[in-house]
Amino acid sequence: MRAILAKRFMRLPHPTLSRKREREKNKRERRKTHYHLRMDNPQTAFLFDLDGTLVDSVYQHVLAWQEALESEGIPLSVWRIHRKIGMSGGLMTNILLRESGHEIDAARGERLRRMHAESYNRRSKAIRPLPGARALVAHLTEARIPWAIATSGRMETARPVLETLGVDFDRVPIVTRDEVRYAKPDPDLFIAAAKKLGVGIETSTVVGDSVWDMLAARRARALGIGLLSGGYASEELERAGAYRVFEDPADMLRHIDEIGGRR
Amino acid sequence: MRAILAKRFMRLPHPTLSRKREREKNKRERRKTHYHLRMDNPQTAFLFDLDGTLVDSVYQHVLAWQEALESEGIPLSVWRIHRKIGMSGGLMTNILLRESGHEIDAARGERLRRMHAESYNRRSKAIRPLPGARALVAHLTEARIPWAIATSGRMETARPVLETLGVDFDRVPIVTRDEVRYAKPDPDLFIAAAKKLGVGIETSTVVGDSVWDMLAARRARALGIGLLSGGYASEELERAGAYRVFEDPADMLRHIDEIGGRR
Repeated sequence: MRAILAKRFMRLPHPTLSRKREREKNKRERRKTHYHLRMDNPQTAFLFDLDGTLVDSVYQHVLAWQEALESEGIPLSVWRIHRKIGMSGGLMTNILLRESGHEIDAARGERLRRMHAESYNRRSKAIRPLPGARALVAHLTEARIPWAIATSGRMETARPVLETLGVDFDRVPIVTRDEVRYAKPDPDLFIAAAKKLGVGIETSTVVGDSVWDMLAARRARALGIGLLSGGYASEELERAGAYRVFEDPADMLRHIDEIGGRR
Repeated sequence: MRAILAKRFMRLPHPTLSRKREREKNKRERRKTHYHLRMDNPQTAFLFDLDGTLVDSVYQHVLAWQEALESEGIPLSVWRIHRKIGMSGGLMTNILLRESGHEIDAARGERLRRMHAESYNRRSKAIRPLPGARALVAHLTEARIPWAIATSGRMETARPVLETLGVDFDRVPIVTRDEVRYAKPDPDLFIAAAKKLGVGIETSTVVGDSVWDMLAARRARALGIGLLSGGYASEELERAGAYRVFEDPADMLRHIDEIGGRR
């Protein structure tokens, strides 16, 4: 066994193989080794949701969706919209329409999307980064811990808040709903973010405020950390699979050593 | 024992007492009997919170408080305000100021109250009764089950939403923050509402959307029913003492026979 491991890591030439076959064998070994090394040395990478996780924008999104739905003659209670926030906008409107017995059609979906973006942008000047958000990502950058942002929102609504957060668009991988086929609770956004970082999703930790982030994390086989700053309760996040819950980015930074955030 | 009970309920003249002493004794007995009868025949009365319970106004209150606090140079995350909504406005601002290390003074408190009312009234035209709210109170009225409204808000902000609800101000007892010394989570509002109805608080059921309603109910020795329509989670309400949780007034009406709402 020790001999096999030694061979795998040292890539010694095999005495009985030809040069070409040897190269191919080494390639196969490297592939296997890569996988094993990743699990043997699981340095954590953090994949952040945006709204409610790094910026305080959930309540504005909720009221903007309510306004959009009402303009289509669909009156819905605000709390029901709040409980669906964080998932794909298209999926959310489909679910809300189905639950309230309204018809789903593509043109209406498109009108809702535009109306929401317009109403949200009108409200977005009041939006601030959450306490500790900038300090948390600055800590990770300084400690050379990989991090990225993955949001169910579109770049159209995400850009202004990313700017208030001071994110360097050239250096931080950002995945928006425009780039993947399915948004949360599907795992695609987080998988794409891990790929952009060049890290394994199975050694990544998703940080989000909604149950949809936690479900997407589980489907991607990542870990999930829940933040209360989107207005969900601790029990909701834990039930959806969060392995740890903090109040907001400031509280997460205070506990960073508990969750793989050391240098 | 049976003889004592028979005497108490039938009020037979006592053979050895004079007429006057007999009358006094009967009066004392009646007082005692009144208490016992109330516990023996506990017809439920319902004491409703207003915001988030009968009308869909919590998120507007939350953002109005955020705007008021920000105008005083106190930036607070929206979810933290949401978690305090439903308690006395004065108590809430004191708690939020203390938690965020700001100074509490009466003049600032008064400015915050005025600023909140102004900002809230600007947002209040979008506010609607919650699904089933009108049908629920109409059912109770028809079934001759006593009900009243007790809100931590002031009449200044409560009146417009009471009007959208179609409440008959001459017939429905309404207790606002203006009428009691301490609002929720103190029990005074619900005790005053029960008194206005002429029912015992210990046979009343408080219906509210926030943990502060549930805590006030327990302090008043009433029962508490939690509604999710204010945006709190089921577990938060149950942990604060709710003996039953429903989605909204429509859902409560569907289950009215489970909670003493029969004719």
